[in-house]
Amino acid sequence: MTDSKLTVTAFDWVPAFAQGHVRDLRVRWALEEEGFPYQVEVVTQGAQKHPSHLRRQPFGQIPTLEIDGSSLFESGAILWRIAEASDTLLPRDTAARDRVLAWVFAALNTVEPPVGMLATLDLFVTDKDAAARIRPQIADAARDMLEKLAAALGTEPHIAGGFSVADIALTTVLQNVPDDLISEFPSLCSYIGHHTARSAFKTALDGQMKPFAENAARYEATS
Amino acid sequence: MTDSKLTVTAFDWVPAFAQGHVRDLRVRWALEEEGFPYQVEVVTQGAQKHPSHLRRQPFGQIPTLEIDGSSLFESGAILWRIAEASDTLLPRDTAARDRVLAWVFAALNTVEPPVGMLATLDLFVTDKDAAARIRPQIADAARDMLEKLAAALGTEPHIAGGFSVADIALTTVLQNVPDDLISEFPSLCSYIGHHTARSAFKTALDGQMKPFAENAARYEATS
Repeated sequence: MTDSKLTVTAFDWVPAFAQGHVRDLRVRWALEEEGFPYQVEVVTQGAQKHPSHLRRQPFGQIPTLEIDGSSLFESGAILWRIAEASDTLLPRDTAARDRVLAWVFAALNTVEPPVGMLATLDLFVTDKDAAARIRPQIADAARDMLEKLAAALGTEPHIAGGFSVADIALTTVLQNVPDDLISEFPSLCSYIGHHTARSAFKTALDGQMKPFAENAARYEATS
Repeated sequence: MTDSKLTVTAFDWVPAFAQGHVRDLRVRWALEEEGFPYQVEVVTQGAQKHPSHLRRQPFGQIPTLEIDGSSLFESGAILWRIAEASDTLLPRDTAARDRVLAWVFAALNTVEPPVGMLATLDLFVTDKDAAARIRPQIADAARDMLEKLAAALGTEPHIAGGFSVADIALTTVLQNVPDDLISEFPSLCSYIGHHTARSAFKTALDGQMKPFAENAARYEATS
């Protein structure tokens, strides 16, 4: 993949609540960890719904990764594809690799669903009263999941052996847990903290945020 | 993997609404498609929360796959692992393989979230009035996603080229879309229909259902 021409798509701007949470972050992070050179194609807010973007991303989402002119979508798939080409993000040993594989899917398909439902209730549901009535039950489900996650992590620094692509997936999912809930789990807070302290993460985050700052005046004036 | 000893975990019984929807179904289906021989370890309802199961499945879920005594969890991870060892579920050509990879993650991380949120509102949220007030907005989000999915599928029989592991993931996710919503999408209904007509699917479903029937009297008497 070092010999490939890589291009990540990212937004030129998103609203404040989404800044630092758009999923190109995890793709940039993986590429930065590995030192794979890449370019960024900035997609104007709204243009993700245009036919030209839907052809490469059927759901109108960000990111995609172009690899030598062929386009891959879904941040989880892109992470896995980068990891397969990586010397550090995915161990070669079968049992260790299986553990990373399990945790990549667990992050996106077991940890994320209750977290995403809480975010939907907090940020998107317009009937605020109904959302507030349902929230405690969904928060309980998320809490139960996080308790099991904290038990699985124990006192380890990483979720699946050494640092791996599973930590990139899991950290970026856990960053979306509402503050009132994640603060109940000190070991998960420090897990997030020491992964987001990695220089590759910081470079990735700076990369995502840069166009938001440049374009803020234009979008915030019209919103 | 044909030389490996494979064991899938499955429940001895689940309530009616979950029968045919437990995630060992997709794992059995993949194994049946490929003709990989496997055994089933039946987990007594409730025992999934015991320490002995949590050691192999940190979230207390079903299924796991034991491969030569080493345990793998998360149905998506297991599907991918089987597909990697398969001659038919995952194409060798890079571009075709990338497309399948993208759609496996899309099924589980883009299609499933709004579908799962609808199921949560319909089946689990105890405040039925609040759930009913929120449902139309969540159904709209799911409908928007399904419209894009139907557009991506077009008139193709499979989602990513020839039949692949992506169809196993997507079909088993789409089976959880509530009837009132999926019926708006005839092409997705026929997609589900022709995939669930495959003999490997039927064998997998029969395998999941068999212990439920055998144990129904005992559980239904006490519930």
